[in-house]
Amino acid sequence: MDEAPSRRITIVDVARHAQVSTTAVSKVLRNAYGVSPKMQAKVRQAISELGYRPNASARGLRGRTYTIGVMLPDIRNPFFAEVLDGLTGRIAGTEYQVLLGPGCNGEDAEARVIHAMIDRGMDGLILIAPISARAHLERVAALVPTVVVGRHGHSHTYDTVADDDLTGAALVVNHLADLGHRRIAHIEHHESTPDCLAEMPNAIRAEGYRRAMRARGLADGIDIASTTYTQEGGYLGAKQLLARPVRPTAIFAGADIVAMGALDAIAEAGLSVPTDISIAGYDNTTFAAFRPISLTSVDQAGHEIGANAARLLLDRIADRSRPTAQVKLSPTLVVRRTTAPPPA
Amino acid sequence: MDEAPSRRITIVDVARHAQVSTTAVSKVLRNAYGVSPKMQAKVRQAISELGYRPNASARGLRGRTYTIGVMLPDIRNPFFAEVLDGLTGRIAGTEYQVLLGPGCNGEDAEARVIHAMIDRGMDGLILIAPISARAHLERVAALVPTVVVGRHGHSHTYDTVADDDLTGAALVVNHLADLGHRRIAHIEHHESTPDCLAEMPNAIRAEGYRRAMRARGLADGIDIASTTYTQEGGYLGAKQLLARPVRPTAIFAGADIVAMGALDAIAEAGLSVPTDISIAGYDNTTFAAFRPISLTSVDQAGHEIGANAARLLLDRIADRSRPTAQVKLSPTLVVRRTTAPPPA
Repeated sequence: MDEAPSRRITIVDVARHAQVSTTAVSKVLRNAYGVSPKMQAKVRQAISELGYRPNASARGLRGRTYTIGVMLPDIRNPFFAEVLDGLTGRIAGTEYQVLLGPGCNGEDAEARVIHAMIDRGMDGLILIAPISARAHLERVAALVPTVVVGRHGHSHTYDTVADDDLTGAALVVNHLADLGHRRIAHIEHHESTPDCLAEMPNAIRAEGYRRAMRARGLADGIDIASTTYTQEGGYLGAKQLLARPVRPTAIFAGADIVAMGALDAIAEAGLSVPTDISIAGYDNTTFAAFRPISLTSVDQAGHEIGANAARLLLDRIADRSRPTAQVKLSPTLVVRRTTAPPPA
Repeated sequence: MDEAPSRRITIVDVARHAQVSTTAVSKVLRNAYGVSPKMQAKVRQAISELGYRPNASARGLRGRTYTIGVMLPDIRNPFFAEVLDGLTGRIAGTEYQVLLGPGCNGEDAEARVIHAMIDRGMDGLILIAPISARAHLERVAALVPTVVVGRHGHSHTYDTVADDDLTGAALVVNHLADLGHRRIAHIEHHESTPDCLAEMPNAIRAEGYRRAMRARGLADGIDIASTTYTQEGGYLGAKQLLARPVRPTAIFAGADIVAMGALDAIAEAGLSVPTDISIAGYDNTTFAAFRPISLTSVDQAGHEIGANAARLLLDRIADRSRPTAQVKLSPTLVVRRTTAPPPA
């Protein structure tokens, strides 16, 4: 701590401070096999006390920077916190550090953040629900090991982890139909490009909703408000639906954050949940479990999704030539207090 | 888009594609003075269409990487989304890209993420409510332009942006005392080190609470549950407070996310807000404005905090020798439906 800030701490200083060899320090830094926990602790303490930073370019020359870039669409959506928890849990104990880039649901914003991450030399990327054209994702994945989360479709250059969104949407529709609802509306995140319509989780949930409604003989009740997967999008979508000549008796919001906005609009309209209208979300976030709300929601195991993405990325960094993997997780429905039979 | 992925796009390709000179492209990349909006648009479109990435090391040699590292303690706290919105709003239109690092409220985690950001060559750092020892922050700021957000205290190496937390806490206590409450409890984020007790916003809010209680003649009613600024911390803190032999009639939660956890515990206990117990938060996040909850909260202008932090950092990157600045913002109270007179 007494070092002047301008004097660069070296591996030699760390070794001297920890009273071990420079080889031992190097081994700890590389997370090499055969380092005792005691040696690990000694070296890490010296690193911490001296404020040592492994030289990035030197590490770069050895081919690793030990940073993973994670792009996510929206920091306000609590689902991404679940994914990140799973992801960081999986890399805990490794040398890897996660840096996050906000993608902001825009193609230009995504290109900027992805390029910044590649420029900053990250060893690999995890892209959560990217909206970029598929060709762009393929090009990125050819440059740097990449795992795409949430988005469906098979790629030979990147690995994918996704939820079975068709099934998840059907779980909600069937639950509401079983309760006796027939006018079940949906709030979707709008898509326009063919790639996104075919691959984005939100588009597949909307398709799952339509299929399940038809399968239950409720084709006439299909009613979609097309906004965004944000609180504001949920608020605006619910306002649209509540203004229909005949109001739906249930709303399936495509994400918990959308349900939050919808609940806001329902409260503003002076209606009660679930007495006047039922509402279900998707993601089973901490918000859904929050007792004053107690939101029925689809659990797509965000933690598992994040853990799988991290595992696939570390595997790919270790072996870039292995065939790509597609992990698909199965959702479950968590019934809480926002869904009940429709008003008589 | 037809380029093979391995072929590196250069500034020459961009110039040819946009049908402008390479000097013009370079000017746009540097955000230089005197580039017409039309030229900007042309070059940016070519950059986007070709997937051009300015060469990081070349940019590094010119002294800039156009990346800003933002460390934040907890992605789940909605207050940080407000700060980030203000921050990204302020840098929109510049060449800068923000990358986020989770600090996770641990000294080791903070050291790791700060070192990763420095190693990755970021031009500057914005550290939100860091808990690291002051000496460590000074050392970091001596290496790279740094703005510290939330934490109080004057530094000659880093700029600071903070809220007047003493005043903010007093606003809550006075509001509750004016309603007739005498047993007003507080849930704080626990601190132990002298640096943090003197400088952290949470510690200063707790001190503001104590001072305001004494100033109102309510010293006997001072009752603090010491947990964390998380939903879980609010839940556990409220459970402690509700189990007191004589229950408080109001709880001042140190952050909205803490109030969320407290509301969860109050619902679990079968109590009503504000009939049985009043609750106030701090941060005035989107959660506080959410109508089904409608939480009384202190607005500390997270958006302004973020915008100021970005401005100070860009100034410091431009001129590392200017004297440090301390920006302190004044909070206001937003009264909503979770606070009312105590039960008779």
